[in-house]
Amino acid sequence: MSNAEIGLIGLGTMGAALALNIADNGFDIAVWNRTAATTKAFHNDAGELAARITPTETLEQLVAAIAKPRAIILMVPAGAAVDEQIAALRPLLDDDDLIIDAGNANFHDTNRRAQEAGDKPFLGIGVSGGEEGARFGPSIMGGGQRQHWDRVAHILTAIAADYDGTACATWMGQEGAGHFVKAVHNGIEYADMQMIAETYGIMRDGLGLDHGKIAAIFAAWDKGPLQSYLIEISGKVAAATDPQTDAPMLDVIVDAAGQKGTGRWTAIEAQHLAAPIPAIEAAVVARNLSSQRDLRAAGETLFGTGPHHMPHDTLSIETLEGALIAGKILCYAQGFGMIAKASAQFGWALPLPEIAKVWRAGCIIRSAMLDDMADALAADPDGNLMHAPAFATLLKERHGQLRQVVAQAALHGIALPALSSGLAYFDAMRTARGTANMIQGQRDFFGAHGFARVDGGEGHHGPWGS
Amino acid sequence: MSNAEIGLIGLGTMGAALALNIADNGFDIAVWNRTAATTKAFHNDAGELAARITPTETLEQLVAAIAKPRAIILMVPAGAAVDEQIAALRPLLDDDDLIIDAGNANFHDTNRRAQEAGDKPFLGIGVSGGEEGARFGPSIMGGGQRQHWDRVAHILTAIAADYDGTACATWMGQEGAGHFVKAVHNGIEYADMQMIAETYGIMRDGLGLDHGKIAAIFAAWDKGPLQSYLIEISGKVAAATDPQTDAPMLDVIVDAAGQKGTGRWTAIEAQHLAAPIPAIEAAVVARNLSSQRDLRAAGETLFGTGPHHMPHDTLSIETLEGALIAGKILCYAQGFGMIAKASAQFGWALPLPEIAKVWRAGCIIRSAMLDDMADALAADPDGNLMHAPAFATLLKERHGQLRQVVAQAALHGIALPALSSGLAYFDAMRTARGTANMIQGQRDFFGAHGFARVDGGEGHHGPWGS
Repeated sequence: MSNAEIGLIGLGTMGAALALNIADNGFDIAVWNRTAATTKAFHNDAGELAARITPTETLEQLVAAIAKPRAIILMVPAGAAVDEQIAALRPLLDDDDLIIDAGNANFHDTNRRAQEAGDKPFLGIGVSGGEEGARFGPSIMGGGQRQHWDRVAHILTAIAADYDGTACATWMGQEGAGHFVKAVHNGIEYADMQMIAETYGIMRDGLGLDHGKIAAIFAAWDKGPLQSYLIEISGKVAAATDPQTDAPMLDVIVDAAGQKGTGRWTAIEAQHLAAPIPAIEAAVVARNLSSQRDLRAAGETLFGTGPHHMPHDTLSIETLEGALIAGKILCYAQGFGMIAKASAQFGWALPLPEIAKVWRAGCIIRSAMLDDMADALAADPDGNLMHAPAFATLLKERHGQLRQVVAQAALHGIALPALSSGLAYFDAMRTARGTANMIQGQRDFFGAHGFARVDGGEGHHGPWGS
Repeated sequence: MSNAEIGLIGLGTMGAALALNIADNGFDIAVWNRTAATTKAFHNDAGELAARITPTETLEQLVAAIAKPRAIILMVPAGAAVDEQIAALRPLLDDDDLIIDAGNANFHDTNRRAQEAGDKPFLGIGVSGGEEGARFGPSIMGGGQRQHWDRVAHILTAIAADYDGTACATWMGQEGAGHFVKAVHNGIEYADMQMIAETYGIMRDGLGLDHGKIAAIFAAWDKGPLQSYLIEISGKVAAATDPQTDAPMLDVIVDAAGQKGTGRWTAIEAQHLAAPIPAIEAAVVARNLSSQRDLRAAGETLFGTGPHHMPHDTLSIETLEGALIAGKILCYAQGFGMIAKASAQFGWALPLPEIAKVWRAGCIIRSAMLDDMADALAADPDGNLMHAPAFATLLKERHGQLRQVVAQAALHGIALPALSSGLAYFDAMRTARGTANMIQGQRDFFGAHGFARVDGGEGHHGPWGS
């Protein structure tokens, strides 16, 4: 019986896909699900992989089916269910058995669970890539003690996505480090998607392009510096036709974006860290505003639209592409800046170049550009990505195009919250003498907060009079 | 002995000012401070008010000096000190004695303390206006049980700021409602200050005006729709001369803005509420970026500045004023929208018109415009402030000016994070058909999240192919 190399609890969409992936890579796996019928159906549907899968009906059977020292992956809904599962499982295990939470945990919970685990092995790993990624190669971000990661690294690297011969599975640091990196990934994903949507809005509303042309433009961009999974699927989404109406699929989809809240977690954590990620915040806000459809419709009735239509050659497609390239770099610079800040604050020594590498394949934000980012961060792990030579060159070439796009959208009434926040970030970050002297003057005036002098002298209150 | 109408604990800057204010309004007050010497010095320096002040050396003496049923104000540092003070004080009190936390508490702590107090009277009140406000008339936002507020309302309204015969002291709702409203006040304060600083940046760097001219412009604006305490003091700050160097004071102040974190609290809470307040988030980000002086200087070296200088008549001062008026309205619309959302979520029934009224005097964001906002919110408490007739008219007149300013700043490299976020918010909120259909298409493509159809039909997944 005790032959499986690893166990897995929770055969929902993601858990089932991950279990098949593990079996498919030649590892024997024992599985258990709260509902025995689910376990049975999963095993029955596993085809030739069924031989490598041991279905079990009780937790005790599951534990008995795994070789010692055991390793068991949890793929249950984030939150209380994880704590309940750990509480039910731990008494059945030996002290050196390893529990791996591979769900979508908030990293604060993972920190707590790691502390509660004490000497008993526990890992929290972020798994990105959706169902297809879980089945055929996700991006895996691990957190916990390195020695425990090493016990299962051969399995996790085997099932992970592959980029040019390198597995996208990396140990990030202690405790919740893996789930933290996954959260920032999701925040960047929000901003990347939002910037693409804004560019789509300019093409549709400003330039008046039909969805076929828009699809072709995304497809063309996918062969250049913007090459990425998100650009690829944006082209496919724009190209799709609704089978019911033969209309462009995008014309059929309601313009209210949902969220599972992971972008929000990132925004909240950035506030706690005082890490500036305005593009990600703008993307979260944009999703919230999108859900206020009635208010937006009332606003259009009251204030009118546009004038959206941009005269011919106001903006070229090349200018739009350049703006999106610049915006994307700025968004990733913010995300990596947040990781660097967390690394220092939490004492995690998060490996920035390795993070860029682990995102190159398997996850939603996978792109060619991340490979260049890995090189840039390896050369200067403490630097701002904007300042790395390759990206500084791209920004120098493109920020003028981002300016054109932001200015024209402002004049024509097209909302670009993320792209315009990116430009404001860039300009603030290249302004040695900003305007916060006014804010410090105000604060000293009304609250006697004091201020520093540029000449380093004393006298930190103003002679404001009244 | 037991004659004082109220007691006060904590004679720091704010506590001392509040105690003098209470005595000055004819109420006998007993005071206590952890350091007896502070209490003695305070009493000695109180001049003719000393007769109304009973200094005490122990908590027992303090309690004995107050008429029953007692009311005692805590003015100690927010956080653990408040809990410690309550724990020390409560055993000395009768069950119907009232404790009032008038410090700068996080409203979550006030919620908790109200629950811990159980049947024993407890209020949490937000006090805005700095030391001068506390001494001569602050804006007071109360939270707790209405019956407990009513016991001290005669004192709180007497000491509060006065606007046209109405006291700026209002009960907002249960538990932490008062401290919550104070937090949003501070968030709006951040955004208002940031938008003013951005306008200052255009005048200084874009239009090349000297500080004397800038001071005169703020002074002129203070006589129009922008009339407010913050515009008034911005003019005074710009007009001030450094006594050490005879240079304009603003040239001497370092451009790195500090924060006490209350803007950050507001941004975090807005994320939890899914309440869009992009202008406030942009202001918090701007403060964080301002502190990265070395990185900004390196950015300027790498990317250059500007071209900041705007040709003559690119933007008129009138256009700038209009942009700031529009930006300010949008910022307040976001803040009141957040309050409305919290009110619904927490079941507080927060009185939006009364909140606008309580901010009309005494606090940092006091302004003429808040009186109009009170009227608009009274007419339609559930509406978005943007849609209220008076403000819709202002926005219709001014949003073109905001567009001009955002566009020209984008082209000339001047960072306007808050003003540009305000414009993006306005345009998103007047666009019935947005671009989140692209985001929903992407989410369905990679995660099978599904989407709603505009025709209400079924079939909530796309035929994406692969």
